[in-house]
Amino acid sequence: MIAKTPPPPYYAVIFSNIRTHVGEGYGIMAEEMVELAEKQPGYLGHESVRDGLGITVSYWESLESIRNWKMVGEHLVAQRLGREKWYQAYKTRVCLVEKDYAFGEW
Amino acid sequence: MIAKTPPPPYYAVIFSNIRTHVGEGYGIMAEEMVELAEKQPGYLGHESVRDGLGITVSYWESLESIRNWKMVGEHLVAQRLGREKWYQAYKTRVCLVEKDYAFGEW
Repeated sequence: MIAKTPPPPYYAVIFSNIRTHVGEGYGIMAEEMVELAEKQPGYLGHESVRDGLGITVSYWESLESIRNWKMVGEHLVAQRLGREKWYQAYKTRVCLVEKDYAFGEW
Repeated sequence: MIAKTPPPPYYAVIFSNIRTHVGEGYGIMAEEMVELAEKQPGYLGHESVRDGLGITVSYWESLESIRNWKMVGEHLVAQRLGREKWYQAYKTRVCLVEKDYAFGEW
């Protein structure tokens, strides 16, 4: 679903990734990380799609909230396992959302 | 594929969208818009995934290059047809990419 974010400015983290063929543990960890992210201060929402390439965009109030989320213990474990097992490659982009436009209802 | 972008700062346009059930003309127009975007001054790359929700992120050198692309005649037609036929809803977010990190090879 398209995230319901407040008026800009706010932050977006674009996580573009390519998986390995290792599936073990990935689905559960991905669900746990969504649940954990939703509890973090400054979390505003996220959108996630995969079709070969995966793109997950999470939205945050501030750079500080992104930095704090990056350092949460269980998230650090997930990041390490991601590099060791689940991701062939990824790129993470930290962005200031300056403007947004919407059309339609969702 | 993950876009090969230069070191930040640069801009990202996150286009999150939900399609209608109208398929007529959409595929051809989508391909044409990719080809046309790639020819625009300041275009840096794009990533696109759909699985129900669609997320397309395009990368640009500057706000000016994004503004110019938004106003290209054929793109204006595509935007209008998108609202009339192809999209139930979308959100477009214009973002300044401040930092990025990569892992692995692609």
